[in-house]
Amino acid sequence: MSTRSPLPPPERLLLGPGPSMVSQRVLRAMSIPLVGHLDPAFLQIMDDTKRLLQMAFQTRNEMTIPMSGTGSAGMETCFVNLLEPGDEAIVCINGVFGTRMADIVERCGAKLCKVEAPWGRIIESADLKAALNRGTKPKLVAVVHAETSTGVLQPLEEIGALARAAGALFVVDAVTSLGGHPVRVDDWGIDACYSGTQKCLSCPPGLSPVTFSPRAVDVLRQRKTKVQSWYLDLTMIEKYWGNDRVYHHTAPITMNYALNEALRIIEEEGLETRWTRHQKNHQALKAGLAAIGIGLASQENHQLWSLNSVQIPGDVDDAKVRSILLNELNIEIGGGLGVLKGKTWRIGLMGESSSPASVLLVLSALERVLPRCGYKVEGGAAVAAAERVYG
Amino acid sequence: MSTRSPLPPPERLLLGPGPSMVSQRVLRAMSIPLVGHLDPAFLQIMDDTKRLLQMAFQTRNEMTIPMSGTGSAGMETCFVNLLEPGDEAIVCINGVFGTRMADIVERCGAKLCKVEAPWGRIIESADLKAALNRGTKPKLVAVVHAETSTGVLQPLEEIGALARAAGALFVVDAVTSLGGHPVRVDDWGIDACYSGTQKCLSCPPGLSPVTFSPRAVDVLRQRKTKVQSWYLDLTMIEKYWGNDRVYHHTAPITMNYALNEALRIIEEEGLETRWTRHQKNHQALKAGLAAIGIGLASQENHQLWSLNSVQIPGDVDDAKVRSILLNELNIEIGGGLGVLKGKTWRIGLMGESSSPASVLLVLSALERVLPRCGYKVEGGAAVAAAERVYG
Repeated sequence: MSTRSPLPPPERLLLGPGPSMVSQRVLRAMSIPLVGHLDPAFLQIMDDTKRLLQMAFQTRNEMTIPMSGTGSAGMETCFVNLLEPGDEAIVCINGVFGTRMADIVERCGAKLCKVEAPWGRIIESADLKAALNRGTKPKLVAVVHAETSTGVLQPLEEIGALARAAGALFVVDAVTSLGGHPVRVDDWGIDACYSGTQKCLSCPPGLSPVTFSPRAVDVLRQRKTKVQSWYLDLTMIEKYWGNDRVYHHTAPITMNYALNEALRIIEEEGLETRWTRHQKNHQALKAGLAAIGIGLASQENHQLWSLNSVQIPGDVDDAKVRSILLNELNIEIGGGLGVLKGKTWRIGLMGESSSPASVLLVLSALERVLPRCGYKVEGGAAVAAAERVYG
Repeated sequence: MSTRSPLPPPERLLLGPGPSMVSQRVLRAMSIPLVGHLDPAFLQIMDDTKRLLQMAFQTRNEMTIPMSGTGSAGMETCFVNLLEPGDEAIVCINGVFGTRMADIVERCGAKLCKVEAPWGRIIESADLKAALNRGTKPKLVAVVHAETSTGVLQPLEEIGALARAAGALFVVDAVTSLGGHPVRVDDWGIDACYSGTQKCLSCPPGLSPVTFSPRAVDVLRQRKTKVQSWYLDLTMIEKYWGNDRVYHHTAPITMNYALNEALRIIEEEGLETRWTRHQKNHQALKAGLAAIGIGLASQENHQLWSLNSVQIPGDVDDAKVRSILLNELNIEIGGGLGVLKGKTWRIGLMGESSSPASVLLVLSALERVLPRCGYKVEGGAAVAAAERVYG
């Protein structure tokens, strides 16, 4: 029964799988006094956020909304709104988040068909094709664009084309890619896409941007049963975010301030510039790690810029390294998830966290810590290699 | 395609149905830089928040958790975790939120039995008794403690006793009462209770505190089917909030900072003192309104202190009054919901918004505005009557 406040916690450099660093501008937006959820001033913020989300998703979809929950609520939103009991759904699984999608599909009472790949590798479109040829009639095909658990970036165009050819909706998890990698919802024919705020958007966790294509909206409108989740029911939520302004639930006002400000920062930087920045910092980190004999655990040529899945070298103790980084240097990196636990670290370079300073600091920190954990490192080699990438 | 930021919005005095005013301390907590959701410093904040929520709910329930969504997510959490398809559930309905509970119960595939009362009146325990005597075998009985749509405070002890005698779990919506009215979860034998942060806790909207009794936890553990919502599945979430610290979803870090600070403010004030404050300000508002011939729309002796449902007098134009208050004086009050739309205003005096200053200001504002809308008022009478209550 402590009575001493646990706030504020220590200041960390956040280089894990999210949350990423949040800029002072966004933190300041979080401390703006609140207005009501039906205040004309708030409705204006909602409209502006919708426009900015359309920019981020590269879409004209009218139904583009931040759901009032974290990324997983966005995932659930897509499935509960699009699936009805008895529907068939193909889910591509090559990590934790594909596995989670499959779990949710089954909770919707839908018939699940899995297309799998080893963790750390992409889903091969041939495998999806084979599944489609086995006579399944899927209502949707779902895939993770950026597998946060493995650091793999999934190519989407072929998968999307196959889904469309099969008459299925194409559902994409862009939690760890939106704002850090190109996510071209309209060009790639994505019908439902969701993300989280705490990754490449560099906003605190708490909202989940979701976008539905007109095709997906048609499916939603033609449902025979009610959406099983009241809280995530887009048939009602669209009446609040649309012109009717019908109260559904009280929107998380402050989180919406933060998202608006975070998206404005992205608009000011420019999406293309932002993607290039993420790419460059990833390349520098990768080169630095390679210089001290450490590789990535994800498939070559399909590696995320935003989340680097790093092979833990030799017999190095995963937890010990992360604990020294956190407690002595205030740097957070992530551990592996699921089957990769103890085998990989996950170094996130997302949004504000994607910077040369982050890369140089985490590399020099590893150069300092790894020798204490039994892994010899040629001092300065990693940092020097990264510097060469920056030129 | 405006490029001018909609932030910050105007500064409002929030006297609607929530969000309520948020103190500078809580706003400052929202701007603290983030740590990760598995950072030992964050786990400490979680433990402290759990202890503080137990204080607010007056419970020892181990399963006392802020869900990562607004109050309606807390509502859904209770039903999806406790109900399985085919179960029977009794829902007491005397306003919007009872209606919403019934909707969610049906989405769970449960058999719904309604016990109803007119909007603005309490549920009579005799009516519940009659329903129980008709041979229903409910798994749970659900009732709204503080109907935000009607301003009614529901007595809970008899309803709870009847539920228990029938072997049913007792589920209570305390969204608008927690922190403003006594909510004695353990003493009143409540098995599942949920609230929202943006009412009497005076924290921004975005989290929903939920508490489950050991009896409710037993029912949860004995489920035959998976909880239909992955995002709200307490069998998984308890492993993150309990000792295992297993990742489920990324907690809304900043919202949790804010809730912790808001609960600390409550602890410092003292719950009893806080309840008395809410009662006194309600009495002053009611006396002030009565002095200018305006009554409350909720049943006498069962009126909420936190949310006053006010009869709109004569032919006064609801929207016009609210619009003048908002646009000229920056005061938000709420309109009626559902069948009460256009007939009532809802004046919230919750948390930070429950103060003599709020009462005096809204009364003098009404004295100023009502004559412009065709309702004669003896200038100063309302304020004077409120002042007499404060003494």
